[in-house]
Amino acid sequence: MSRLDSFIRRLEAQRACLDLAAELIGDLDGLVLELGLGNGRTYDHLRSLFPERTIYVCERRVAAHPDCVPPPEMLILGDMRETLSAAHDRFGGRVALAHLDVGTGDAAANRALAGELLPLILPLLQPGAVLASDPVFDCVGLMPLPLPNGIAPGRYHLYRRVNA
Amino acid sequence: MSRLDSFIRRLEAQRACLDLAAELIGDLDGLVLELGLGNGRTYDHLRSLFPERTIYVCERRVAAHPDCVPPPEMLILGDMRETLSAAHDRFGGRVALAHLDVGTGDAAANRALAGELLPLILPLLQPGAVLASDPVFDCVGLMPLPLPNGIAPGRYHLYRRVNA
Repeated sequence: MSRLDSFIRRLEAQRACLDLAAELIGDLDGLVLELGLGNGRTYDHLRSLFPERTIYVCERRVAAHPDCVPPPEMLILGDMRETLSAAHDRFGGRVALAHLDVGTGDAAANRALAGELLPLILPLLQPGAVLASDPVFDCVGLMPLPLPNGIAPGRYHLYRRVNA
Repeated sequence: MSRLDSFIRRLEAQRACLDLAAELIGDLDGLVLELGLGNGRTYDHLRSLFPERTIYVCERRVAAHPDCVPPPEMLILGDMRETLSAAHDRFGGRVALAHLDVGTGDAAANRALAGELLPLILPLLQPGAVLASDPVFDCVGLMPLPLPNGIAPGRYHLYRRVNA
C-alpha cells in the first residue's frame, strides 16, 4: 500500500467517523469542539454536519484556507494545554462532540501531546458525548465505539464519554 | 460538499487516473516522469505501480516525507521551466508516463504555470505516452482519454500523446 493509498484511507476513516459521530450525538444538546484547525478541512466538514450547533475551534496559530477560518469569537487561540484548562469554566460538561487530530507527522510527539490533552478534554465532555480522535486512548472515562462499516480497526477512533 | 469531501474525491481521482495510466502504458517502454514531488505521496504510488521502470522526479526544493525522497541521481532539482528545457537531450521522446500536479492552492497561478510547462513536456513524451494531470489542457498534441469508472469529468485529467 502506497502512502497515497494510506493517506486516502485515513481521510476516508476520519470522514466516516465524523459522519457517524453526528448520528450518535443526534439526541444530545451541546456544542462541538474542534481540537486543532490545521488546513480547516475537517472544520468545514463539521460545519456542514452541524449547521445548527455552536462549533468552537482550538488552534495554536491559524494557517487554514481562508474559507475555513472560524469567526474570531469561535476561535480559541493558543497552546491547547493552556487554553483547554482555561476553557473549563466556559465549556465544562457542555461539549457533545470533540474531534482531536493532532497529526504533526511525528507519531511519538502526537501520542505524547494526546496524553497531555486527554485529562483536559474529559471534563469538557457531557455524559454520552462522543470523542472522535486520531490518537488512540485507553481510559476508564472513554468507552471505545464500533467504527463505521468498512473502516479497519485503528485507522481512526471513536469513544463515548462514560462515568469513570 | 465540504472541503474534506472534495479533497478526498480529488485524491481518489488522482489515484484512479495513475492506476489506469499504468494499464494504458503497459505495452510501452519508457520512463516515468513525476513533475512535482510535493510531500512524495504520488511518487510513492508511482514507485508501487512501476517497480521496474525508471522514475525521474522534478522538484524545485525537496520537502517530502523522508521515505519518499528519490535517490539523488533520479532527482532533477530546480525550476521546471528551466530543468525541463535542459532535460530534452536526456529524455526527449523517451517518457511513457508523465504526471503533473502543480497544486499550489492558487488556481490561477497553477493554470499559468501549467501553460508554461506544457510546451516543455510535450517533446519529452513518446508517441502513445500518457500524461496524467491536475490542470486541464487543450492542445492538438494531446488527446483527452476517458477517465476511470466513477471519476467525474474535470476532477483529474488523462491525455494520450498523439501526432499534432
